[in-house]
Amino acid sequence: MSVLDKFFTGDKLALAKVISHIEDKGGQLPQLLPKLYAESGQAFRIGLTGPPGAGKSTLVDKLAIIYHDTDNSVGIIAVDPSSPFTGGALLGDRIRMQNLAQYDNVFIRSMATRGSSGGLAASTGEVAMAMDAYGQEIILIETVGVGQVELDIADSCDTTVVVLVPESGDSIQALKAGLMEIADIFVINKSDRPGADYIVSEINMILEGKRGKNDWDYPVIATQALNDVGLDDLYRQIDKHRQHLTSTDNARWHRRHKVETDLRRILGMELREYISKHLLTESALNIYIEHILNGESNPYQVVAEIIESLNQDKS
Amino acid sequence: MSVLDKFFTGDKLALAKVISHIEDKGGQLPQLLPKLYAESGQAFRIGLTGPPGAGKSTLVDKLAIIYHDTDNSVGIIAVDPSSPFTGGALLGDRIRMQNLAQYDNVFIRSMATRGSSGGLAASTGEVAMAMDAYGQEIILIETVGVGQVELDIADSCDTTVVVLVPESGDSIQALKAGLMEIADIFVINKSDRPGADYIVSEINMILEGKRGKNDWDYPVIATQALNDVGLDDLYRQIDKHRQHLTSTDNARWHRRHKVETDLRRILGMELREYISKHLLTESALNIYIEHILNGESNPYQVVAEIIESLNQDKS
Repeated sequence: MSVLDKFFTGDKLALAKVISHIEDKGGQLPQLLPKLYAESGQAFRIGLTGPPGAGKSTLVDKLAIIYHDTDNSVGIIAVDPSSPFTGGALLGDRIRMQNLAQYDNVFIRSMATRGSSGGLAASTGEVAMAMDAYGQEIILIETVGVGQVELDIADSCDTTVVVLVPESGDSIQALKAGLMEIADIFVINKSDRPGADYIVSEINMILEGKRGKNDWDYPVIATQALNDVGLDDLYRQIDKHRQHLTSTDNARWHRRHKVETDLRRILGMELREYISKHLLTESALNIYIEHILNGESNPYQVVAEIIESLNQDKS
Repeated sequence: MSVLDKFFTGDKLALAKVISHIEDKGGQLPQLLPKLYAESGQAFRIGLTGPPGAGKSTLVDKLAIIYHDTDNSVGIIAVDPSSPFTGGALLGDRIRMQNLAQYDNVFIRSMATRGSSGGLAASTGEVAMAMDAYGQEIILIETVGVGQVELDIADSCDTTVVVLVPESGDSIQALKAGLMEIADIFVINKSDRPGADYIVSEINMILEGKRGKNDWDYPVIATQALNDVGLDDLYRQIDKHRQHLTSTDNARWHRRHKVETDLRRILGMELREYISKHLLTESALNIYIEHILNGESNPYQVVAEIIESLNQDKS
């Protein structure tokens, strides 16, 4: 029985292997991915993002258990641009995985930064697709930080939850971090700390204009994930957002948006591959660099020549 | 007199116009950029990054004044993935610019997220190049957050300073954020707050292994930017790192690395342009999406066909 056969019979180890294939960019990937794609599309993807230390992991784990308890299978992807020099998953992740191991229908995977820009957002999408094809009904994607990769990942989710804490700083900082546009739902976690009411009302104020222009009301929820406060409310709001997305008015737009996001993500990934295989091979790169350092060329000229070589035969 | 002629006579307004051209991707850009490149390469680029609320803006402004007072011209680029729905520069930026306006040789520019992933890192590089060509000797690039774009920008800087605060959380969070690898210098700002000594010694502990393998000692500096504490020390360490990079052992490697970074950045940018013009035009995209939604195709097949069309004529 092949790994993929085992995968489709619900073998958890096969799922883990398929995800490793995706991360390692194994040779069979071009055959594998379309098969996974064909079986995917049923899962609901929830992205949780926010600054480090906001308590996202706890929130994600507690949400996973709520979904588990309401008879949903759950996949968790913890996107973790961790250090190569610590070598792999950090202690916190291991403890976390042990805690979740008791829930049979909850599958957790940590993703670390590998290689160059764009790769992480791309493979996160594939891993989510694998979990989806495997049959996990709810996929929770947790990202640290507020960079472009996180924004791209959020864009590929159905519902995006932005998690802040009272001491996240004033709302200008949240605005700066680009978090306001991507959030469907705001969570102020650790809301027993001083300043929680203030940040809730401040975010509500900022959202006023946006609420008027949309038929979604961007709720702001105070939680204390560690003390199980506010989690049911969060669960209900996510469900409400899901109904909003699948309403007659929005369903078609939402489906198109998902396909476009997939298409751009996959094209970006394959182009990077194409560049390093055909356009900027190690040896070509060395020659280009020498020419530029000698003053015989400049990076713009080199790139123009490369693009020209693509263009040539299309006219 | 053309804008570029004015630019090279040191007209500040012309610099601002050239930067706007870069941001707007104006039609003359293909002619403009190689000219800027030819005149650039003298400036020293310092990246400052860290979580929102760490006091990076204050630190950057104070550093800029130190460089100004030691007779260096300074360019500041504040990379600010700010909200499209607030419409442009935030109040804080305006106040800041007014404060710096009294220093004649300090030029500040805010950059906001525009369009898709990768675009921000790309145009930040071009803006830095423009300031470099204009003659600014020190370029300070300030980024919010810890995502891939920020890592890419850091990679294009000569010296990268990671700014944390005592309440940034334990060092595992800093590790998670991918900040440990990119930092040449660590700053613990707001070091009058509780926990500063603890985080300094924790980061020092984490760095021990890395220090042994390199000939740079990754200093950790406690600062209070608002109270002018530790800034001279930071200034000296940046200067020391600059000497380290330009030492006989490292200079050649460092120059090659800069050219490679430029090349990859420009190629990525031009390929994105090429794709949206030739491969994924609005109308092509609509057809692809319909085919995928009908089940006649899937995103992997579509992308394979697009890549194939690049490949075709290269065999």
